[in-house]
Amino acid sequence: MTYCLAINVNKGMVFASDSRTNAGVDYVASHSKMFNFIYPNNRSIYILTSGSLATSQSVINRITTDLEDTEASFNLLKAKHLHEVADYVGELSQAQQTKYEGAMKKSNMSAESSFIVGGQIKGQDCEIFHVYPQGNYIKASIETPYLQIGENKYGKPILDRIIAPNTTLEDAARCALVSLDSTIRSNISVGPPIEMAIHTYNDFDGPYYNTYSVNSTFYKSLQKQWNEGLKRAFKRLPRFEWEKEKS
Amino acid sequence: MTYCLAINVNKGMVFASDSRTNAGVDYVASHSKMFNFIYPNNRSIYILTSGSLATSQSVINRITTDLEDTEASFNLLKAKHLHEVADYVGELSQAQQTKYEGAMKKSNMSAESSFIVGGQIKGQDCEIFHVYPQGNYIKASIETPYLQIGENKYGKPILDRIIAPNTTLEDAARCALVSLDSTIRSNISVGPPIEMAIHTYNDFDGPYYNTYSVNSTFYKSLQKQWNEGLKRAFKRLPRFEWEKEKS
Repeated sequence: MTYCLAINVNKGMVFASDSRTNAGVDYVASHSKMFNFIYPNNRSIYILTSGSLATSQSVINRITTDLEDTEASFNLLKAKHLHEVADYVGELSQAQQTKYEGAMKKSNMSAESSFIVGGQIKGQDCEIFHVYPQGNYIKASIETPYLQIGENKYGKPILDRIIAPNTTLEDAARCALVSLDSTIRSNISVGPPIEMAIHTYNDFDGPYYNTYSVNSTFYKSLQKQWNEGLKRAFKRLPRFEWEKEKS
Repeated sequence: MTYCLAINVNKGMVFASDSRTNAGVDYVASHSKMFNFIYPNNRSIYILTSGSLATSQSVINRITTDLEDTEASFNLLKAKHLHEVADYVGELSQAQQTKYEGAMKKSNMSAESSFIVGGQIKGQDCEIFHVYPQGNYIKASIETPYLQIGENKYGKPILDRIIAPNTTLEDAARCALVSLDSTIRSNISVGPPIEMAIHTYNDFDGPYYNTYSVNSTFYKSLQKQWNEGLKRAFKRLPRFEWEKEKS
């Protein structure tokens, strides 16, 4: 499995993803699920993937090929609006799934993939989209300014408590790391390293990008402080009536 | 949907459940999912249900009828070990599902139900079981001394951080409430009131039992303090390098 998320706040966007692709006992593989297409002073586009690795790799390959082909009818550089990119990713994904549909069905397997497409084209707003395996897509709302794909439930409560449009980019980034860390702790099919990209609104020189392994000093310190902070918060919770009587 | 959980620590057991049965926009119904069978000085048995309400109601009805029938080949009072009760609940559930299988299939619906069966028979240990829709069951382990049915993922991270065999009953109960509260906040299909029963090891006079509505003073205070505690913990997380440079 996978867990990827994107957060869109007033100050910019945060993209984060885990790297586990196979959590079998004998074979734990790690693979990047984040693809950044940065064109300084023009546009920054971020794509996160979950689901069939074959489908998502072929979509990314096709995106790259189209970018090299100046005669392509569409590519990331020709998009006038970001929703056109979401549409394009949905079409590539559907084409790939349809190609292998028969063979996959015979093996009782699925070639479905989900994507988060986000970014900013100069002169426009930051936007994030969730592209479904069926190829259609939704945009994040102002009320819930984040999107998740893959194992999304474990890490959702902290996003619901912290993330709002006026959250700082740094807090959004910390919240993304906490959300991923909680998921990694509770589900063996999601694993480090964690990749993170932070895009500042109207900054087209490329994102702040980092990879956090289990041995990363910052990630270890964040894990430790969050765990201790949660335990402190837990200890302060109200006592039941009979505990008060006892003490 | 539903979210129910049971925690088995050295000092006893905690059972907790939400009450939402239908989260459609026009029709939000509330129904108890916790059934306690208390026989002072003899045995205390707790059953939590999720899935098809028709199946779980019929299982509970049959359990009650068997209890009234002194000639029944088996009932909760005739069980020598708690795993026999888990087995019995699995059989009743399967019988009910099989009866309606054809009709349900025609409507493309499922009559599946899951159960948590827990309790203590005098002279024996506290035990909790997860009875699958297929009728078979597993017992909670010492390493992970809790079980969940229904929407289990949102509320799992806090259990993984807090619950261990030596956790006090009161902390286990607070953790159950936090786990339910996080789930209710993140998923509209899980809703209050929350029912909770606390069984103290070797105490057969009946559990501490309470229902927490959204207006319950204790629940409101716990919600508020947990939210504030989390935000305090979040604020204390380490700063990124560039934040240090700025300040």
